Amino acid sequence: MGTSVGIVGFRGYSGAEAVRLLASHPDCEPVLLEHRADSGEDVKLLRKSTIRRAPASPESVASEGLKAVLLATPPDVSMDLTPKFLHAGAVVIDLSGAFRLRTAERYKQWYKEEHTAADLLESAAYGLPEYNRECVRQARLVSNPGCYPTAANLAIRPLVAAGIIDRGAGIVCDAKSGVSGAGRKPALKTSFCEATENFSAYSILNHRHIPEVLLTSGVEEREFSFTAQLLPIDRGILETIYFRLAKPLSSADIIAIYERQYADEPFIRLYEPGHVPDLHGVARTNFCDIGVIADPASGRAVVVSAIDNLVKGAAGQAVQNMNLMLGYPEAEGLL
Amino acid sequence: MGTSVGIVGFRGYSGAEAVRLLASHPDCEPVLLEHRADSGEDVKLLRKSTIRRAPASPESVASEGLKAVLLATPPDVSMDLTPKFLHAGAVVIDLSGAFRLRTAERYKQWYKEEHTAADLLESAAYGLPEYNRECVRQARLVSNPGCYPTAANLAIRPLVAAGIIDRGAGIVCDAKSGVSGAGRKPALKTSFCEATENFSAYSILNHRHIPEVLLTSGVEEREFSFTAQLLPIDRGILETIYFRLAKPLSSADIIAIYERQYADEPFIRLYEPGHVPDLHGVARTNFCDIGVIADPASGRAVVVSAIDNLVKGAAGQAVQNMNLMLGYPEAEGLL
Amino acid sequence: MGTSVGIVGFRGYSGAEAVRLLASHPDCEPVLLEHRADSGEDVKLLRKSTIRRAPASPESVASEGLKAVLLATPPDVSMDLTPKFLHAGAVVIDLSGAFRLRTAERYKQWYKEEHTAADLLESAAYGLPEYNRECVRQARLVSNPGCYPTAANLAIRPLVAAGIIDRGAGIVCDAKSGVSGAGRKPALKTSFCEATENFSAYSILNHRHIPEVLLTSGVEEREFSFTAQLLPIDRGILETIYFRLAKPLSSADIIAIYERQYADEPFIRLYEPGHVPDLHGVARTNFCDIGVIADPASGRAVVVSAIDNLVKGAAGQAVQNMNLMLGYPEAEGLL
Amino acid sequence: MGTSVGIVGFRGYSGAEAVRLLASHPDCEPVLLEHRADSGEDVKLLRKSTIRRAPASPESVASEGLKAVLLATPPDVSMDLTPKFLHAGAVVIDLSGAFRLRTAERYKQWYKEEHTAADLLESAAYGLPEYNRECVRQARLVSNPGCYPTAANLAIRPLVAAGIIDRGAGIVCDAKSGVSGAGRKPALKTSFCEATENFSAYSILNHRHIPEVLLTSGVEEREFSFTAQLLPIDRGILETIYFRLAKPLSSADIIAIYERQYADEPFIRLYEPGHVPDLHGVARTNFCDIGVIADPASGRAVVVSAIDNLVKGAAGQAVQNMNLMLGYPEAEGLL
Repeated sequence: MGTSVGIVGFRGYSGAEAVRLLASHPDCEPVLLEHRADSGEDVKLLRKSTIRRAPASPESVASEGLKAVLLATPPDVSMDLTPKFLHAGAVVIDLSGAFRLRTAERYKQWYKEEHTAADLLESAAYGLPEYNRECVRQARLVSNPGCYPTAANLAIRPLVAAGIIDRGAGIVCDAKSGVSGAGRKPALKTSFCEATENFSAYSILNHRHIPEVLLTSGVEEREFSFTAQLLPIDRGILETIYFRLAKPLSSADIIAIYERQYADEPFIRLYEPGHVPDLHGVARTNFCDIGVIADPASGRAVVVSAIDNLVKGAAGQAVQNMNLMLGYPEAEGLL
Repeated sequence: MGTSVGIVGFRGYSGAEAVRLLASHPDCEPVLLEHRADSGEDVKLLRKSTIRRAPASPESVASEGLKAVLLATPPDVSMDLTPKFLHAGAVVIDLSGAFRLRTAERYKQWYKEEHTAADLLESAAYGLPEYNRECVRQARLVSNPGCYPTAANLAIRPLVAAGIIDRGAGIVCDAKSGVSGAGRKPALKTSFCEATENFSAYSILNHRHIPEVLLTSGVEEREFSFTAQLLPIDRGILETIYFRLAKPLSSADIIAIYERQYADEPFIRLYEPGHVPDLHGVARTNFCDIGVIADPASGRAVVVSAIDNLVKGAAGQAVQNMNLMLGYPEAEGLL
Repeated sequence: MGTSVGIVGFRGYSGAEAVRLLASHPDCEPVLLEHRADSGEDVKLLRKSTIRRAPASPESVASEGLKAVLLATPPDVSMDLTPKFLHAGAVVIDLSGAFRLRTAERYKQWYKEEHTAADLLESAAYGLPEYNRECVRQARLVSNPGCYPTAANLAIRPLVAAGIIDRGAGIVCDAKSGVSGAGRKPALKTSFCEATENFSAYSILNHRHIPEVLLTSGVEEREFSFTAQLLPIDRGILETIYFRLAKPLSSADIIAIYERQYADEPFIRLYEPGHVPDLHGVARTNFCDIGVIADPASGRAVVVSAIDNLVKGAAGQAVQNMNLMLGYPEAEGLL
Repeated sequence: MGTSVGIVGFRGYSGAEAVRLLASHPDCEPVLLEHRADSGEDVKLLRKSTIRRAPASPESVASEGLKAVLLATPPDVSMDLTPKFLHAGAVVIDLSGAFRLRTAERYKQWYKEEHTAADLLESAAYGLPEYNRECVRQARLVSNPGCYPTAANLAIRPLVAAGIIDRGAGIVCDAKSGVSGAGRKPALKTSFCEATENFSAYSILNHRHIPEVLLTSGVEEREFSFTAQLLPIDRGILETIYFRLAKPLSSADIIAIYERQYADEPFIRLYEPGHVPDLHGVARTNFCDIGVIADPASGRAVVVSAIDNLVKGAAGQAVQNMNLMLGYPEAEGLL
């Protein structure tokens, strides 16, 4: 019998992915926490699933022995449930945007609604283990990063830190996401006939994931041109990142910067200089794949960063954080 | 009985699109010119198509009364056939890259092979009617623009001409194309299982369409970061173009520049300021749709340009050029 | 100025297709009739469409000079609007299921709701021109056939009439449809992530299109096994029809039956014996393509019937009917 | 260190799936066996995979300590390599059609080529564990079933055995497969632009998988109408199976027959009466999902059977067979 871990929002795409990962985790087992906001039927199999179910209420922490709860819920539900589950004794990993920014003001600015659990903002750890591992280990509340910022920060931060970007020329992040990133709730834009054989941009220069990138990467908003775009695929995020070099560096020079930064990271994979990742390479994995093509003579450089938005961009990273919080090996259940 | 127009390469995606367009053109009718390099079977309908067929040889110009020939063929076939069809009395619209650059040296640099009809380079008109209409009208050989350069030049050139781009910060063109842009010849990269649920970049910073953009737009190579990427769709090109403003302009200011430039153009459609096109809007049309989002305070600007790669990016533009060369109304058969 | 034809439900997939067809019809022009039940925004193009708009009310018949109205609406809206538009003087082509069955009882049995315009059922002509051309010509109300029944009836009826089917062994119609057949209203089942990389059956043995097939083809319900299935594509219906031969016939013998039946039909295309159609062949056309493979020795036979569900299965057939009703050549605007 | 298992054809879709499964198998580890017929490049990751490689030659059995070899190769390669690997001491699971039929004559009839290892046909066990478990356990050569026959036999055989099918009316199996079933070699029919937004039938009534169904299910060829069709998806097979009931049975009655047959089977899942599976339910699993809808009054019945063609239809079933042959728990590495 493994450690019991609750999942609220298990019918959504991120939540279902978390259930899948926890069901094969050697030390944990998932408990489905039913919330009134859930919709959708179960599959009509004759033999029912043996995964336990309980209400998404704090009482379930004691009754089910939950050590951790993953919230794959909208921000308002997360702001409601997080203090209750924390108070009941579970650690919480929240996959929404509720606790990603540092202040209630900043939250209101980007999410266009009041923060109703602002007192938790200070103690929430930002769950990007590659840069915040120790904080995550000690936190009782981890805010799981957004999908776009995960791919962007892992690619941009080492280069900003190394000072190789000509900041005055700006940084462009052209991001493309599979449709599952928009969640499971039916909407015209994400219906099959609208999305198939199509490609469209949205939230150009004002996506609510932008402040997360700024916070972690050290880039300024005025420097950062970010476009989110909808790919006619189920899952995957690929970001094509453009900047100008502050000094003449080759693709190999830039890959070497990443190698130094990520030498011991289990979930960052680098491509040979001059080669870049695609989405098939990261599908259903917790990897972030990074590749570089640069032209030292003209100073142009392109970095491609790829993740599975439901794994490293959501449920996989949540399990990675959970492993850290509960004291399991960080990569357990994820390789 | 309309004017007879031959198509070589009618089994390829661009060639088949040209046949489709010419079959409903009020003044023309297509003649399929069979070339040894063609492969593929015809559909097994009981009643055979009544579209005429003839060999892809110069004799067919006289025997079929061809006034124009469209070459939807690889560059080496185009370099072989173009002088023959011209000599036989037809005008030629070549859809390959054979005659798009100005010199044999430049051709060799980007296409990695010798030019075998270099004497025709000087007289070949570059068939982007929005900027070269009079030359096209008088030309006997028109080089039909590449798909990526068509979308890029129509978006970039007016802004370069207006001097609103901070050239030192560079221009990024993040281009995405449907798979038909790679042609009909089977290859691993364009097979269904490799392309579906995937997205990948190729020819980063060194795509052979780059010199066409430079020639027409007035941008310098060192300023221009271009990435071609493969979308898991049949047809459509969307380019997300990023630059920094040389002066504080709003989305509306920039759209106004396009309006002045394209006021009388039948195939350019502009979006309201702050809105951008998608690929469904241009599918199976000869339109190039353009939209702008700019932030005057920070100087960031994004332009989105969308075409159907097989129509405005190939066969449609070829028919537009043919109309100009044969004296028909420019938009005939294309609206 | 062409004859004005109103379309209610122009934002739906069938309605939009009707607008597209009428916009290029040489004798007609579309008028968009706005109905309260419509939702969705218009594309944000700077230059607005010049297609006229009016309310979906009977007054618009006079004010806009409408000769015909196409209702691409749900049955309840069609039952409400049809008598009003007829009374105002327009002929009506209804694309819903409201007037396809012969009695209110039959309607209630299959559509699970009361018929609110039952007095019109008797005078409504079933708009399958290949079998009901004269009735359609004289009708003021035409009920446009369902998408599945169009493909099924055109394939099955000639064989039933020829008496070549072993009726006791039953007839199987395994039908597959693109997602647009489910309409434009967002729903979980038709959302991109649920439909892509999936295939699923629904309404097995009890689809509401079944009685239409029985009515026209002459097959009995107990003989007819019909399954509707959802293809991860935008548009197209392909039906694979299985039966056992009442006598030993070859593929060529069966194709000959179709040839005799459909010799003068502009929209039926037959394949050579032993070859069958696919969906690319009929996409965006008003054709129904039919092919046969039979094994005389064992008595097994397979017929494949393919249409575009939005054209021959909806808007195209509606225009075909409209042409007949208004006295235009039947195929006008459809080839 | 697990037991070493070689895979020939590891760059193909089935072979790659086998590598993936063996890499996470608790008792085995994969060894990639390079064969001259392989093509394709490796991913350009900086840190190379640690999976061992060796030539696809019998010497590798000793040098690498291979206990089993999986051949994910075309029949001619399988006929060449199988005797060599057997002689070198490994057990062989062959995923091709080379050893699925019982005689060289039958092989030639359906595969249109001579059998070059006919002496092995008698000792080859047909690897459908649900019906041949003990033979597989004792075999040194297992012929892994075809993808279509796996889904068909698991659905049809219990019903034939129970005598509930009206055999005279025939059995229809309308089968649909994802494109990966056609293998990885580029071909026009499986290229993205040909397959996307399309659906097409092939090998109607004469697919080479038919004799496998006849052998195992007990159906006669003249009774069995089988059509293979290409779905625009990567992976998955769904078969819609139609027959007439020999006696009046409900959906629940028929499901009960399956329940009795498959009570202890780890990889067969049944749906509640009146519900049927889809492809998402089986994707990337070794399950075969089965559902039934029947109408006792008219005698019509429909069974839907779904598998992942690369798992239960190929590599997963191969690992299941390997587990039996090597003495591991049958489901190990597959749940």
